[in-house]
Amino acid sequence: MSIFMAELLGTALMILLGNGVVATCCLKNTKHDKNGNWMIITTAWAFAVFVGVIVAGPISGAHLNPVVTITFALTNAVAWKLVPQYLMGEFIGAMVGAFLVWIVYKDHFKITEDESAKRACFCTEPAIRNYVSNFISEFTATFVLIFTILHITGANIHLTIDPNANIGLGSIGALPVAILVWVLGLSLGSTTGYAMNPARDLGPRIVLFLLPLKVKIDWKYSWIPILAPLCGGVVATFLHMFLSS
Amino acid sequence: MSIFMAELLGTALMILLGNGVVATCCLKNTKHDKNGNWMIITTAWAFAVFVGVIVAGPISGAHLNPVVTITFALTNAVAWKLVPQYLMGEFIGAMVGAFLVWIVYKDHFKITEDESAKRACFCTEPAIRNYVSNFISEFTATFVLIFTILHITGANIHLTIDPNANIGLGSIGALPVAILVWVLGLSLGSTTGYAMNPARDLGPRIVLFLLPLKVKIDWKYSWIPILAPLCGGVVATFLHMFLSS
Amino acid sequence: MSIFMAELLGTALMILLGNGVVATCCLKNTKHDKNGNWMIITTAWAFAVFVGVIVAGPISGAHLNPVVTITFALTNAVAWKLVPQYLMGEFIGAMVGAFLVWIVYKDHFKITEDESAKRACFCTEPAIRNYVSNFISEFTATFVLIFTILHITGANIHLTIDPNANIGLGSIGALPVAILVWVLGLSLGSTTGYAMNPARDLGPRIVLFLLPLKVKIDWKYSWIPILAPLCGGVVATFLHMFLSS
Amino acid sequence: MSIFMAELLGTALMILLGNGVVATCCLKNTKHDKNGNWMIITTAWAFAVFVGVIVAGPISGAHLNPVVTITFALTNAVAWKLVPQYLMGEFIGAMVGAFLVWIVYKDHFKITEDESAKRACFCTEPAIRNYVSNFISEFTATFVLIFTILHITGANIHLTIDPNANIGLGSIGALPVAILVWVLGLSLGSTTGYAMNPARDLGPRIVLFLLPLKVKIDWKYSWIPILAPLCGGVVATFLHMFLSS
Repeated sequence: MSIFMAELLGTALMILLGNGVVATCCLKNTKHDKNGNWMIITTAWAFAVFVGVIVAGPISGAHLNPVVTITFALTNAVAWKLVPQYLMGEFIGAMVGAFLVWIVYKDHFKITEDESAKRACFCTEPAIRNYVSNFISEFTATFVLIFTILHITGANIHLTIDPNANIGLGSIGALPVAILVWVLGLSLGSTTGYAMNPARDLGPRIVLFLLPLKVKIDWKYSWIPILAPLCGGVVATFLHMFLSS
Repeated sequence: MSIFMAELLGTALMILLGNGVVATCCLKNTKHDKNGNWMIITTAWAFAVFVGVIVAGPISGAHLNPVVTITFALTNAVAWKLVPQYLMGEFIGAMVGAFLVWIVYKDHFKITEDESAKRACFCTEPAIRNYVSNFISEFTATFVLIFTILHITGANIHLTIDPNANIGLGSIGALPVAILVWVLGLSLGSTTGYAMNPARDLGPRIVLFLLPLKVKIDWKYSWIPILAPLCGGVVATFLHMFLSS
Repeated sequence: MSIFMAELLGTALMILLGNGVVATCCLKNTKHDKNGNWMIITTAWAFAVFVGVIVAGPISGAHLNPVVTITFALTNAVAWKLVPQYLMGEFIGAMVGAFLVWIVYKDHFKITEDESAKRACFCTEPAIRNYVSNFISEFTATFVLIFTILHITGANIHLTIDPNANIGLGSIGALPVAILVWVLGLSLGSTTGYAMNPARDLGPRIVLFLLPLKVKIDWKYSWIPILAPLCGGVVATFLHMFLSS
Repeated sequence: MSIFMAELLGTALMILLGNGVVATCCLKNTKHDKNGNWMIITTAWAFAVFVGVIVAGPISGAHLNPVVTITFALTNAVAWKLVPQYLMGEFIGAMVGAFLVWIVYKDHFKITEDESAKRACFCTEPAIRNYVSNFISEFTATFVLIFTILHITGANIHLTIDPNANIGLGSIGALPVAILVWVLGLSLGSTTGYAMNPARDLGPRIVLFLLPLKVKIDWKYSWIPILAPLCGGVVATFLHMFLSS
């Protein structure tokens, strides 16, 4: 399996599970009665990352996020020439995952009228629209994500998992990142929906545009979950490099 | 303890705990007030698998699911001649577990009138009945289950746990599979109730048929949670083999 | 620290945290709004056991439960002459823990009128009173508890934690038992309140009798959470011995 | 990175995530519908500590709490001359974290009128005001916190994490402390809001005083979450030393 394919599969599974839980919480007539949505969404996103890391980890280090790729390139943990295949895998994977959510929840999309609920199954939207505040929210959440990941990976940098480790214990290595995503969702996700990942937002947004769902795409907001996470991640990387030097 | 007995006991415990939480959430007058059912059901099913894996793991590798058995036979991790005793243990175990749920919740079954609530304590039912969509849902969830399990088990394939491992740390090896089942439930379970396992659905359905509960069995749907998981698992196995070759 | 003191402290912390969460959920004017009680109670009880195991583990093996002590005596993992100090530590610890819950929640007990809510902060009560069914519930839950614990501890039998283990990783060994208690609560606890432990129920019940709370003690039910767990645990032990021989 | 900087960053991240979830639950128009607040708050605080421990752990041992620092100084695990930089890092970090919460949730603060909800995003407040009871609550919760931490850290005392450990597995060492904070919140936090940490309460309270939010600071209560945790922690330390000698 190539790096490209590992990132594609890992990101696709992450988005399928991550956006799948949003569909569970937002679409009509699912088996969930809409009590406790916030806990459900943040828990599932955490473990969606867990699954993505398990699948992609041994091959590509499981970036699953262009910000992680660029961070690791900045720290020389990943060669710049590998960056394009990482990014392509991440964006195409996110699109595949988003498409699968639509396939699985097709009947529930049909009976849901609320446009904003249907859009939420693909991309993020702020609770209060204010580009400065929304930028700060995504910047801060991604800053904490990347800054903490650089401490989790330590000297190894890569989020790799030892494929020869005893059953399960190797995969347990994916748990700290999952818990990190859990708390970021719970604590900093309620303002903008915590994209923290350009591929996670843009990929599914393009799929939403291509699908016959007749939902407004909200392109005007789409640059925030691309640019703000990138800036937050880069600042976190430089702060980490400065403090470690 | 033989493989047959390990699978029987592990599956029985898994179904007792897994269907037990559905009884907690669906039947009348339990100590749970029906707030947050979806989180409760998915969490308990995840840890029901955890318990089943701990008990059956060291002996049989804890398949607990005919799809896992057939997957591991396809990858030559399990000899085909062992398959019958795995399958028998799984189906009989599922029936024993379902019967125990009825025993424990007998008084609550008595005062519950809603037929669909009582049936849910045994077998799955789609939120929106559409055989094509339902097949796709179960296919996709089981595909993710098996594809990720093949990454968790890695070279060892078996979900075995080292019985000589230091206390607890050995059993922690069952956690990644439990988390996988957790997120599958949260994210992809709300359409059909995520059987992902022919024994989990058919075994208890037969018990429901044998018990004096006067509930319609819904045989017409029963082939979906048998065939779709099987197809999803086989496709996941072949994709994994293709990617690893 | 002696075995007696370790069991006393571990059980006291377990009951303080376990009955403390019931006080949070049942008494008036706590900071919790009574949404999602079942998840909250079962999660906290799981981690109450986690804390008790961490504290008592390295000294006494953290039984915290007369059924565990008798089980381990039956399997010759604990000498019978040590049993009395285990039992005394467990019962006195449970009483200390229950007394502390009353101290911490005193103002909330004062403004709560519902007798059954106040009693729930000490001892268990069945959802539907039927001694046969209640016995079966406690028997089954404790059977699963002990049967699975015997698989978690494996050859070591004791729930000990290596005190020289690297930080945290030693304590992680307490997690499988905590998860087991979590799922037992979620799945089998909603009928009788899952005592599964004679000390956990009788100790606080005696404290309730001694405190000036003017709450009926319900002595008529008190033998069930003593006898049923004991029977369940002993049967689990013999089945495990039979299967392992 | 110096000890001062490690404590500052770790505490800042802990308060940003910990008070961030309170903002999610208390302020208006966040993406969370206010169902299941207690579970959400306690889960996020647990993992806020997890993140703080991961970031500060390898450098400073991740005290993040003046009570932990003083405890470890009393047990000679930390030299008294290092205590000032620990304390300064903790208090300044808590203030930085509190300030960031205000920045991220600024628009939500604006539209929230409830003074007590806005204050809760900074510092704690008792459910029933009674200085004796409130002191006992904070004393007891912090006693359990410190007493259990001394068992988790064992002979190593420091909450350090091996920076050379295999990916993730090193960070998993932060999980037991996180679970401890989780259950303390669930079980003993509903009376006073479980400060258990003078820096966590006083730092953000001072920030609240400095910010233009027009919220009463409630200075009269502010000594409880300083003095009670300190007393609880010191008593826990002496009891632990006595029992271990």
